[in-house]
Amino acid sequence: MTEGLKVVVIGGGSSYTPELIEGFIKRKDEILIREICLVDIPEGTEKLEIIKNLSERMIKKSRLNIKITSTFDRKDAINGADFIITQFRVGGIDARILDEKIPLKYNTIGQETTGAGGFANALRTIPVILDICKDIEEISPNAFLINFTNPSGIVTETILKLTNVKAIGLCNVPINMINMVAGIYNVDMDKVYIQFAGLNHLIWGMKVFIKSEDVTEKFLESYIKKAGALKNIPDFDWDPDFIKSLQMLPCPYHKYYYLTDRMIAEEKEIALKEGTRAQLVKKIEKELFELYKDPHLDTKPPQLEKRGGALYSDAACNLINSIINDKKDVQVVNVKNNGTILDLPEDAVIETNCIIDKRGAHPIQIGHVPAKIRGLMQIVKAYEELTIEAAVKGDYYTALQALTLHPLIPSAEIAKKILDEILKENKNYLPQFYNN
Amino acid sequence: MTEGLKVVVIGGGSSYTPELIEGFIKRKDEILIREICLVDIPEGTEKLEIIKNLSERMIKKSRLNIKITSTFDRKDAINGADFIITQFRVGGIDARILDEKIPLKYNTIGQETTGAGGFANALRTIPVILDICKDIEEISPNAFLINFTNPSGIVTETILKLTNVKAIGLCNVPINMINMVAGIYNVDMDKVYIQFAGLNHLIWGMKVFIKSEDVTEKFLESYIKKAGALKNIPDFDWDPDFIKSLQMLPCPYHKYYYLTDRMIAEEKEIALKEGTRAQLVKKIEKELFELYKDPHLDTKPPQLEKRGGALYSDAACNLINSIINDKKDVQVVNVKNNGTILDLPEDAVIETNCIIDKRGAHPIQIGHVPAKIRGLMQIVKAYEELTIEAAVKGDYYTALQALTLHPLIPSAEIAKKILDEILKENKNYLPQFYNN
Amino acid sequence: MTEGLKVVVIGGGSSYTPELIEGFIKRKDEILIREICLVDIPEGTEKLEIIKNLSERMIKKSRLNIKITSTFDRKDAINGADFIITQFRVGGIDARILDEKIPLKYNTIGQETTGAGGFANALRTIPVILDICKDIEEISPNAFLINFTNPSGIVTETILKLTNVKAIGLCNVPINMINMVAGIYNVDMDKVYIQFAGLNHLIWGMKVFIKSEDVTEKFLESYIKKAGALKNIPDFDWDPDFIKSLQMLPCPYHKYYYLTDRMIAEEKEIALKEGTRAQLVKKIEKELFELYKDPHLDTKPPQLEKRGGALYSDAACNLINSIINDKKDVQVVNVKNNGTILDLPEDAVIETNCIIDKRGAHPIQIGHVPAKIRGLMQIVKAYEELTIEAAVKGDYYTALQALTLHPLIPSAEIAKKILDEILKENKNYLPQFYNN
Amino acid sequence: MTEGLKVVVIGGGSSYTPELIEGFIKRKDEILIREICLVDIPEGTEKLEIIKNLSERMIKKSRLNIKITSTFDRKDAINGADFIITQFRVGGIDARILDEKIPLKYNTIGQETTGAGGFANALRTIPVILDICKDIEEISPNAFLINFTNPSGIVTETILKLTNVKAIGLCNVPINMINMVAGIYNVDMDKVYIQFAGLNHLIWGMKVFIKSEDVTEKFLESYIKKAGALKNIPDFDWDPDFIKSLQMLPCPYHKYYYLTDRMIAEEKEIALKEGTRAQLVKKIEKELFELYKDPHLDTKPPQLEKRGGALYSDAACNLINSIINDKKDVQVVNVKNNGTILDLPEDAVIETNCIIDKRGAHPIQIGHVPAKIRGLMQIVKAYEELTIEAAVKGDYYTALQALTLHPLIPSAEIAKKILDEILKENKNYLPQFYNN
Repeated sequence: MTEGLKVVVIGGGSSYTPELIEGFIKRKDEILIREICLVDIPEGTEKLEIIKNLSERMIKKSRLNIKITSTFDRKDAINGADFIITQFRVGGIDARILDEKIPLKYNTIGQETTGAGGFANALRTIPVILDICKDIEEISPNAFLINFTNPSGIVTETILKLTNVKAIGLCNVPINMINMVAGIYNVDMDKVYIQFAGLNHLIWGMKVFIKSEDVTEKFLESYIKKAGALKNIPDFDWDPDFIKSLQMLPCPYHKYYYLTDRMIAEEKEIALKEGTRAQLVKKIEKELFELYKDPHLDTKPPQLEKRGGALYSDAACNLINSIINDKKDVQVVNVKNNGTILDLPEDAVIETNCIIDKRGAHPIQIGHVPAKIRGLMQIVKAYEELTIEAAVKGDYYTALQALTLHPLIPSAEIAKKILDEILKENKNYLPQFYNN
Repeated sequence: MTEGLKVVVIGGGSSYTPELIEGFIKRKDEILIREICLVDIPEGTEKLEIIKNLSERMIKKSRLNIKITSTFDRKDAINGADFIITQFRVGGIDARILDEKIPLKYNTIGQETTGAGGFANALRTIPVILDICKDIEEISPNAFLINFTNPSGIVTETILKLTNVKAIGLCNVPINMINMVAGIYNVDMDKVYIQFAGLNHLIWGMKVFIKSEDVTEKFLESYIKKAGALKNIPDFDWDPDFIKSLQMLPCPYHKYYYLTDRMIAEEKEIALKEGTRAQLVKKIEKELFELYKDPHLDTKPPQLEKRGGALYSDAACNLINSIINDKKDVQVVNVKNNGTILDLPEDAVIETNCIIDKRGAHPIQIGHVPAKIRGLMQIVKAYEELTIEAAVKGDYYTALQALTLHPLIPSAEIAKKILDEILKENKNYLPQFYNN
Repeated sequence: MTEGLKVVVIGGGSSYTPELIEGFIKRKDEILIREICLVDIPEGTEKLEIIKNLSERMIKKSRLNIKITSTFDRKDAINGADFIITQFRVGGIDARILDEKIPLKYNTIGQETTGAGGFANALRTIPVILDICKDIEEISPNAFLINFTNPSGIVTETILKLTNVKAIGLCNVPINMINMVAGIYNVDMDKVYIQFAGLNHLIWGMKVFIKSEDVTEKFLESYIKKAGALKNIPDFDWDPDFIKSLQMLPCPYHKYYYLTDRMIAEEKEIALKEGTRAQLVKKIEKELFELYKDPHLDTKPPQLEKRGGALYSDAACNLINSIINDKKDVQVVNVKNNGTILDLPEDAVIETNCIIDKRGAHPIQIGHVPAKIRGLMQIVKAYEELTIEAAVKGDYYTALQALTLHPLIPSAEIAKKILDEILKENKNYLPQFYNN
Repeated sequence: MTEGLKVVVIGGGSSYTPELIEGFIKRKDEILIREICLVDIPEGTEKLEIIKNLSERMIKKSRLNIKITSTFDRKDAINGADFIITQFRVGGIDARILDEKIPLKYNTIGQETTGAGGFANALRTIPVILDICKDIEEISPNAFLINFTNPSGIVTETILKLTNVKAIGLCNVPINMINMVAGIYNVDMDKVYIQFAGLNHLIWGMKVFIKSEDVTEKFLESYIKKAGALKNIPDFDWDPDFIKSLQMLPCPYHKYYYLTDRMIAEEKEIALKEGTRAQLVKKIEKELFELYKDPHLDTKPPQLEKRGGALYSDAACNLINSIINDKKDVQVVNVKNNGTILDLPEDAVIETNCIIDKRGAHPIQIGHVPAKIRGLMQIVKAYEELTIEAAVKGDYYTALQALTLHPLIPSAEIAKKILDEILKENKNYLPQFYNN
């Protein structure tokens, strides 16, 4: 075998890629790579070229012997791959703009990963990920797929339920929560341990430890005034009584569920003033790619931080590192439940603390979760399960039940209106609903 | 043993009692009763007297040898009891008016059994039912308790979790759904069989049979235009696509969940025009008691129908009949889950088809329920579990989590406002929140 | 549709068939039959002919209009069938003789349904039942299959796991236990209710009721001296302390598990003196068929009772009766567990009290069973699961694990010796182990 | 707080203690200890004195500042304890001799931890461990209890079910299996990773990894001829076909289950020739204590190895090390199942790979186990559950069911004879069976 890994990045033309490149460069002593192959679609030709060139300059500066390649031929890319990172978005940023705008029209949360926006995103993404997995099963069945594509939990559950691909779902929310706690306590991230349980973008920090001491209660007191780690989510304070009653650390996305009315109001106000988050991101992206073009740029520019996705590269590189080096350390990823949380189906995907070794991710047992988080976790999981079924079959009625069940959708009538508009506006990306 | 049963009715001064008396008279050949003891509280003296007198006239007319007694001394009543029927409301109709009005102020469903109103009702009721059960455990541990007191599922779960009383929860919703189907098909009720699953006031008819034939699909088509069986719930049409996607018969209370926005609008409009349902009921009750006073009245007056509670007497009498005669027939009641629905906790109370025999009610196994109904069932059950815990401990923070979790409450902030107002307005009935 | 049912009996040439015919004649007012089709294999030509003729004489005497047909063409028989009763034995009585003798050679229980003998029987039977089910799926997918073929629990689990046939497993053990209790109390069988739980031939009567009263404790005291209902099992007394500690009614087959050493000794002694049970049965069968030949015989001869299988016809006819008439009464049959007993896999087949209606058999929920019966139930179920897997795949190693795990097999070494001999001696009936 | 840990050893007069002392000395840089307190009973005065003196000489030689104390006052010892190691045997070596001899008389396995001998041991031990735990709950509720006392799984389950003590059950079997594999591959133990599942003394190595590579299949091939790691168990070869069919690494104690007949024969032969294992141990112990007395001896003498218990000190010290230093590494210990193995009760104790941190041991999720190991695991667990219940209540009938259920006991009749003899011969240690 040729020495070093082949890492394939599907959606390689993303503005995030330089962060990933930087992550690999930082870990050069532990992760030996022979090739990073950036895959994208012809519509993204220009971006892919820019990213490839910037990546090559970064690698050159690092004096590493990593080949950067780019291609539209996915099968060719997958061939010989050790790790395949998926970070694509079906329909690109314009589809995301619709994911945010359509739900808002009906006075519901407009967001790319949750609510009706996340639902539309899932419908578009699931057929594509299944296609990719068919290629992996055929060409590189032993490769690990590390999925960042949103909605990450739903996408990972789709893969683990319907394919044989060795997939692990990843999200930068847990690592950012750890980072936030580290910041508050002014310690390194490795001094923070959070016992998580939940679903992707619906994860609770059940216990918080600093240097092995359980500081949960104290931390929550101080936390109340300091939330707001993620760029993609508007930020404001939690009610102290609410946090006291929850006795856990909510994730940033919990605001959509616990503070729905305020979040809708805020989203509407921002959308009116400056456009939705996706519209802003589109602008940022444009500026970023202008920067990336600069033939003298050979590092990740600091402006990338505005884009969100903080620490996502660390999440991915840490995971790959622990797999190839059989580290048996604890990381927070999306895996098959298999009884870890006894209140969710065995074949559901959950996000939780796992031991990472050469074979993959092994969840640490949780058992039953408290009723206060159980109910929300269960209804969102049922929504996710129905969404996968609807997306795979292209079944209107299952889609209607999925959206109706979503706790951010106020009624079956509104669900139907939004569903109809999603299907209409995403027609090009939803062949499964039109061709059967 | 003296021949015949002693049946105790706690909340015996209710306007519903004549219906119960009529039910026993109709079944005189199967249910031999020696005494019906009506229990109430001193505040209800006048009503209790009226009901007692009317009951005596009804019994006299039937030429049966049943003694009607009335008392404020619950322990005395329970002594020697075979069946204890609980149909009281803590705080009476005025408390119910508040249960409807407070939530509506915050633009949420105002209803006596679900949403924030049902929650307030549960907080008031749970300490009282536990007191009653303490008496039963002490004085008549072998008596069956048949609970009608709302929220019936939560109250029954409280009893089965925290006491040794042999309790069965009862509700007139399932029998009315059967009756409605019978009406549509123009057959007797015993020709209709519905396979139910769910929680009290959140029950789905998963399959509908007429004369042993599965007519579910056909029935749902015809049903769409004909819903609306219960007096206590405003009536309007379901969307055909929604019913088609659900593939089940929803219960009337599902409108609060599936059509929340329309139900709130409707409630507000009615409240403005004619007062809330409870205010209307108060008026009806007043008229009913005027009628009941008539010393010539010796039958249940037809006006009682306006009150709601249709067929509730049949539900209770059928249950008693099958228990004492060991009938082993199928009835729909609230029992301990014990794995019947694998997606709910083992110690949860569910409403489902049960075999009724001398020992009580034994659920027919269901297994896993479809995802489309599972999620809603699970979140409401988690809410119920927290509500019981909050009501028993008088714990503000658990109460806040309970109400926040309820799918009819839009946010933690609104939950807090409503909770604070509930605690304030129900102060006299919530000692557990004030004395600890 | 032509009026009346078509009932197909696979293994129709069995000496038991006249009992079945008698059962249908007895229930003529409730079960209308147009044809009873007896299916067998060419090796059984003579017996089939004899049975057909006797059946025709019995029907003629009853003046019913039922056509008796016989065929070797299974597909033809299945066509138009409403009920298919399977009561065949692969390899016939000679295979059963081996099932009894081989295990005994190794000082282990030799029995046609449990231990190594039942295991061999399962290996031979499973491929055949799967063939039959393929025909049913293709030709009469709506027919009910009522399986008597032993080992009945394993065979039924095979069908329900691997095919879509609507199968219910049946055994005459529960009905005989009810009959025995009725006899002891001198009441009719319908005055006895036993709450059963377990697996086929490993079923415990957890509670015993006479005329709706729980008499379990008293009954067990009196029972101790009176066991021994089934002809196929040697009979002797239970130890009073053991029954007192069990607090349940064991089934006759429990002696193989609880009194293994005595049963082996007894089997060996009988085998030496008069041959194994199968050898005796072979003799009885011969005599029976001689009797059956008599052209004047037009009723079931009393000598059939010696054969065993008491009440098996009642079990089958009662089941068919309740299905076609949607009776919703309780019968004890083998069904998919589906969570009824929480300590067994969801897809396992269990034997328990079920509601019987037009759709089939619906178990009454049990929940967790006491540890004292749980462990034995679980290990036998694991053995059964492995046996099915071994029989389907023809896998030697899985077979070795299955037999090793069986609680009646004392060690892996003996398991291997017995397995090797079973495979050798049953070679003609185990193509799956030889052709792969 | 005074610096360094207080470690209490209950059964401190054991001949094993010097190994423990050596273990602490070896890890002096990671585990800082201020006091090792040896607790025993007056009957063991002489041994305790000898061990204390030897320990002091060993500590002196190591130049560490650890105080060695000894006492009969358990409460005093527990006061201030950080870790309490239980390694006592109720009734001493003479009781163990009976545990081996009584079962053998009835032709069943005679062994101190499994079969009827382990059962007798459990009956004697459970009341004592509950007394100890009452003291810990009262005096040092935050101390960790590390239990070595056999039967270790049953004892740990008793503690975790019935007390609030933070207990972890430990056994040297897993570490010896790892050591054996390391020996075969000639690598250090930390290069071996075995994925275990099961119960104490009934644990399967489901997968074997060397330097992160899965070598299970290959290893099993080579293993077949090389088993036999533990001194306390006679040694001979496994059948290659059996191991091939198991596809897992059995533990040494599996021979009692899989090769019962050979093990009984071997035990009987050895007992006849040289006495039972316990009789041999008694002799070894005597010699050891003679050696220990030598005032010049200041290290663990090599002769201790003959005693068995290899690596037990490493198991204990590694566990303490990972707890106090929050290592989050993987060790194999006995913990509450809590859904880790979905086929066992949630409150059962299992032996499996756990993450060890400051809070204790957290199992890595397993899910369902294969049927071939599931059945045996389940029946032994049911036996264990009943044994605990019998021992706590002193209930003869539960004890009879427990022993009857044990897969190493051939029948209820033999169970009764053995039980009666156990109760008679252990009368002094089983007050719970005599005083109620």
